[in-house]
This record gives sequence, C-alpha cells and structure tokens, in this order.
Amino acid sequence: MDLSTKIRAIYDYPIDGIIFRDITTILQDKEAFSESIDQLAELFKEEKIDLVVGIEARGFIVGAPVAYKLGAGFVPVRKPGKLPYDKIKATYELEYGTDTVEMHADAIKKGQRVLIVDDLLATGGTASAVTELIEELGGEIVGLSFLIELLGLKGKDKLKGYNVKSIIKYEGN
Amino acid sequence: MDLSTKIRAIYDYPIDGIIFRDITTILQDKEAFSESIDQLAELFKEEKIDLVVGIEARGFIVGAPVAYKLGAGFVPVRKPGKLPYDKIKATYELEYGTDTVEMHADAIKKGQRVLIVDDLLATGGTASAVTELIEELGGEIVGLSFLIELLGLKGKDKLKGYNVKSIIKYEGN
Repeated sequence: MDLSTKIRAIYDYPIDGIIFRDITTILQDKEAFSESIDQLAELFKEEKIDLVVGIEARGFIVGAPVAYKLGAGFVPVRKPGKLPYDKIKATYELEYGTDTVEMHADAIKKGQRVLIVDDLLATGGTASAVTELIEELGGEIVGLSFLIELLGLKGKDKLKGYNVKSIIKYEGN
Repeated sequence: MDLSTKIRAIYDYPIDGIIFRDITTILQDKEAFSESIDQLAELFKEEKIDLVVGIEARGFIVGAPVAYKLGAGFVPVRKPGKLPYDKIKATYELEYGTDTVEMHADAIKKGQRVLIVDDLLATGGTASAVTELIEELGGEIVGLSFLIELLGLKGKDKLKGYNVKSIIKYEGN
C-alpha cells in the first residue's frame, strides 16, 4: 500500500505558503493505520527495543501502537506542566523563541534500548531535545522512526550519529 | 497480572486532597502495558469495531494501540484549534466554566461501529461530549472502555444507555 496517497494535503495551513500533511485520513482508514504501524515497527523489529518514546500529542498516536507491536514499554514526552512526578526537561530553539519538553526522571533505566517514534520529522528540533532527555537518563538510543519526513527542512542534519528512518518522504517543507 | 499494583498514586496532585492515578508506570513496564491494551481490547473484540475514538492526550496512548489490536481505524478527539480540517465541536460543563472538544467532520461515516477508549473515567463530562460528536456524524456507539474508573465520581451516570466498561476501579475520587 502506498501510504502517501492516504495523507491529506491542506494548503496554506497553519499559515500561507505551508502545505500541512494531515495524517488523520491515514488513522481513520483501518488498513492504512495498521500498515503504518507495521511499517514503523518493521524498521526496528530486530533491535530488541525496551522502550518507545513518543512525543505529545500526535506522536502518542503512532508511538504507542509501535511499542505494543514491538512488545516494548511506552514513555511519553510531554509539554511543560503535564507530567505529575519528578521530571527532567530540555529546551530547544524555535524560529522565534524556545520550547521545552519534559520526561519523568524514572522513565528510563540506564542501558535500556530506546526507539523514538513520531509522526513527523521537520526541522528535528524537538526530536533532538528528546535525544538529550533519553541520554541524560542513560538510555541507549537505537534509532528514530518517523511516519513522514519533510526533506527540505533537513531534520536529519540535527540528528547526526543516530539511525533515522522514515516511511513517507516529501521533497519540500 | 493485577494492573492496579502498577499504577503510581500521587497524593495532593494537582491540588490538595486529590490522589492522582499516574499511568506512566504502567506504560513504561512492557508486560503491564501489553496486558493493559489486551484487556481493553478483549472487552469489545467480538463487536466488529470499525473505529476507536481516543481523547487527547493520554487517551491517544491507550486508544491507538487498542485500535491497532482490534484492526480498527483511529479517530482523535482534540482540544480546540488543533485539528486542521473541517470540524464539529461539543461544549460541556466543568465545576467552574466550560470546556470544548473537536473532531473532524469527516472522521466517521454513518453507521460505522465506534468504540470510545480513554485512560480515565472520572465525572464522565468529556466522554459524554464525545458521544454527542460521534452521534452527530451518525456513528453507532458500541461502548466505552476505560483503563481506570473512579467510582466515587459516578461517571457512569452521565453515560446511561451506553455499554461502559473499565479495567481498574477505585472506590474514591
């Protein structure tokens, strides 16, 4: 199945000149959803993944089923103030300003093999911040698996040294 | 496996007198996570579910794997302003003020069999609003499946007429 045909392009959203790639049309199609999860999991199925880390909020929708499929646990990375227990955080640069992500301080044990899963690789800023959190806790990052990659934004450059894979690639941004 | 032993109780969070039930300790435990999803799916596995509806954000973490396990599609219900396409919305009462949830207007086709999955049944206000959205689109609500139910808040009273099930029950609120 060519999953790219199942994605809805929304022009000039959220601002003029941007084509937003809407994955809800994949999610609500039972065959396409199942195939997406299988493909994301397949990329790392020989890697004995202990934990999948997913990024709020769309990353939960793809990350949690991939964790289930791989027989791994799931760790949510959340926006500030959402997690109830002791946390660590990482702040990263945006075009204007900064953003912060948080993870529970006991979410990962030293030496656990971790896969990051998200719906979209754009500039790689968020994913890079998440790698910092995982390594601060002593996790071993086996790779990163994305449903969509926007090649024009060169997110892989921010993730040098990691095994980065994606299912659907777009040339632009 | 007694999943209730895997939940972390956080006292006086988010405010004094409340015991917050933290599911991240279930999620990050691979056996407990897998067992949770299996139990949630098992409750409705004979029901030919077309779509699972999950509620942002923790509901995505349990709802999406249940959809995958059941071979169903997944529909996200989101906070206002997060969905990129034509939407419908429902507003519901809180103790002080109101809250709103949104769903894509083309998320559900008339007659599709829908299961609502969420991490927590508390007062039932959000879940009840989600039933309105699904029925506005002509979906048939087969049931609601929750990981945790806080019996003291009587959420089931707001969901009369629906098949409501939960895995872990607490007497209080």
